[in-house]
Amino acid sequence: MVLINENYLKLPGSYLFSEIARRVNQFKAENADADIIRLGIGDVTRPLSPAIVDAMKAAVDEMGRAESFRGYGPEQGYEFLSEKIIENDYKPLGVELNTDEVFISDGAKTDTANFPDILGVTNIIAVTDPVYPVYVDSNVMAGRTGAFNAKGQFDGIVYLPCTEENGMKPQLPTTKVDMIYLCFPNNPTGMTLTKDELKQWVDYARDNKALILFDAAYEAFIQEENIPRSIYEIEGAREVAVEFRSYSKTAGFTGTRCAYTVVPKEVKAYDSQGNAHSLNSFWLRRQTTKFNGVSYPVQAAAAAIYSEAGQKEIQANIRYYMDNATIIREGLINAGYKVFGGVNAPYIWLKTPDNVSSWDFFDTLLNQANVVGTPGAGFGASGEGYFRLTAFGTRENTEKALERIRTRM
Amino acid sequence: MVLINENYLKLPGSYLFSEIARRVNQFKAENADADIIRLGIGDVTRPLSPAIVDAMKAAVDEMGRAESFRGYGPEQGYEFLSEKIIENDYKPLGVELNTDEVFISDGAKTDTANFPDILGVTNIIAVTDPVYPVYVDSNVMAGRTGAFNAKGQFDGIVYLPCTEENGMKPQLPTTKVDMIYLCFPNNPTGMTLTKDELKQWVDYARDNKALILFDAAYEAFIQEENIPRSIYEIEGAREVAVEFRSYSKTAGFTGTRCAYTVVPKEVKAYDSQGNAHSLNSFWLRRQTTKFNGVSYPVQAAAAAIYSEAGQKEIQANIRYYMDNATIIREGLINAGYKVFGGVNAPYIWLKTPDNVSSWDFFDTLLNQANVVGTPGAGFGASGEGYFRLTAFGTRENTEKALERIRTRM
Repeated sequence: MVLINENYLKLPGSYLFSEIARRVNQFKAENADADIIRLGIGDVTRPLSPAIVDAMKAAVDEMGRAESFRGYGPEQGYEFLSEKIIENDYKPLGVELNTDEVFISDGAKTDTANFPDILGVTNIIAVTDPVYPVYVDSNVMAGRTGAFNAKGQFDGIVYLPCTEENGMKPQLPTTKVDMIYLCFPNNPTGMTLTKDELKQWVDYARDNKALILFDAAYEAFIQEENIPRSIYEIEGAREVAVEFRSYSKTAGFTGTRCAYTVVPKEVKAYDSQGNAHSLNSFWLRRQTTKFNGVSYPVQAAAAAIYSEAGQKEIQANIRYYMDNATIIREGLINAGYKVFGGVNAPYIWLKTPDNVSSWDFFDTLLNQANVVGTPGAGFGASGEGYFRLTAFGTRENTEKALERIRTRM
Repeated sequence: MVLINENYLKLPGSYLFSEIARRVNQFKAENADADIIRLGIGDVTRPLSPAIVDAMKAAVDEMGRAESFRGYGPEQGYEFLSEKIIENDYKPLGVELNTDEVFISDGAKTDTANFPDILGVTNIIAVTDPVYPVYVDSNVMAGRTGAFNAKGQFDGIVYLPCTEENGMKPQLPTTKVDMIYLCFPNNPTGMTLTKDELKQWVDYARDNKALILFDAAYEAFIQEENIPRSIYEIEGAREVAVEFRSYSKTAGFTGTRCAYTVVPKEVKAYDSQGNAHSLNSFWLRRQTTKFNGVSYPVQAAAAAIYSEAGQKEIQANIRYYMDNATIIREGLINAGYKVFGGVNAPYIWLKTPDNVSSWDFFDTLLNQANVVGTPGAGFGASGEGYFRLTAFGTRENTEKALERIRTRM
């Protein structure tokens, strides 16, 4: 008799964004004329920029000619792309990497969810609370947690609350943990850590032989000085951290799909005898067995991000979104909301007024303003009473949404 | 202290194709002038056909305009593609499916390797021997096997030998198994099962509440009558089988990356209390959490396969490859080799002469004929003494390779 993976039975109800889609669809069915503005799921709206489109089409043309056709590529990705990543995303930060420390993939969601495949199931994980749900759910599926409890959390996970009280900055755990998920600039709070603050985490990991899974998907949106763009700017991080990055938000690749993960050769995990093993070779083995590389035209498109024209175009898009962030942030402040984020990140995290629950605020915002956001409770127990808006809408919709929030809420 | 997944330590040495690459690179370093012909890894050589190129470029253009830009798509894939799959790949076989039973992905390797994520780790797996290594290695990684033993097999796996004696057709297991991997037309032997033969497996699975993971990646190459193209042509298969298909070989997508997996709603697996659960909803949960869908232009390219022009073009490519298969098959027979496959599949499986080991034959073939093939032993213990050649080379190279085998071996 074939058995299922019973860990899946621990997962409560629907996945956050499916539940949002369900409620929005129900509202639409009952209000066919409503002009709904989505500032929820965090999908971008700016099209692929011309340099990227041209490069991708040229690569498709190459695929149509026998002499330039490319079949299976390296599972780890083409060097033409990993070289550009190192040169443009890391060298300017003073971070040296080799191409075999960079793994091109189809998404940071895929990578953050799959990376624990190579780690033991008894590791204790720590996550910030609120947190991107994929970190938690993928570990539940893998059996790295206990049951879903009455607090709306999973037994066995160490949650690190990020609230108004601590300025949305997680405190070091008081019990030992083995795998620590950090995402900065943060989804959903939009907040960042300074280099000194991040260094505390690297030091903790070194002292405890822990692993940091650092999600830097939003680094391109950093506007201020002294905010680390990569965890490898912190001394010693190469020994204890893997870093996930994505073109989804940076270059509008949510529908094009390309990302990468950095696994320095120094990063180690241990077997039960205490022997150290390089995670780089484990991840390579995992990827060569369970993945077949990213579509060549997609990798060619990603490489074009680093061209002079590509850089100019994507920086213009980032400015566009960050101007949206300012509109949302200032609009909410002027309307009397308490807000976080939106300065170095495309996310604005607001405190719901009068302590209403975040799903109630979702329903009110949808009904009265016809604006879709993301309830903070969907990101964890400490997200209750908070709400996320994203800067990825069009300018027109963003302005309209804030106007409606001002006048209808 | 962060622990690694110790199951990875059970995996011996390199992955098959990495080892081949290593030997070929070494040979090239020592014989810079050698004109090496690769009939090994099974990568295609025909470029993407014009209908596919045009559709993909048009989709990239859509991505470059705000009004037609697509961000996150459904993780399960776009309905425009799953509808075409159902209409073209299944309806003509008398198989009815709904779009939510089709999951578009970036590759059959990815899907066959990841699908067991939703299944219990105590399930006993059965694989044919020889077998596509990914089925075995992914289950080793998941902890579904014991150690690698002196026979070159993993303890705990039920191997079903496919040899000259049984005409490369696996016999039903004599002990109970829970997960059965079947790939027909087969990689590496190139052999097929009849509907009656496949029905025995479906009946076994129904009688034993087992699951069949049916890899139909090569169905497009079937030339003869009465060979099932889908396992769902067999009565009752909807209750016990998932089916993996791929555009890699069918339409030259090895570098473009698109495939799909069919999970009928009737397919069940059981919890430890014996309650049945629909694998369709488990797989949907897995994919929505750990995957973010296939690149839109890639899905648009895949949809073009089903256009009138697309069908004409890919059928011409399939004929081209199957003509290569005939050249290889007949060339080998005339040269005195015992061969299997190559009639309904792009693979030709030959018995090595004088019982030399398959890696020795690999080295001899590389050294004397400068032809790269795949040693049968790489596919399992019963593959020892066999060797795989593929029909995916160019016509010129295929003819040249056979001429060299005739004259230099």
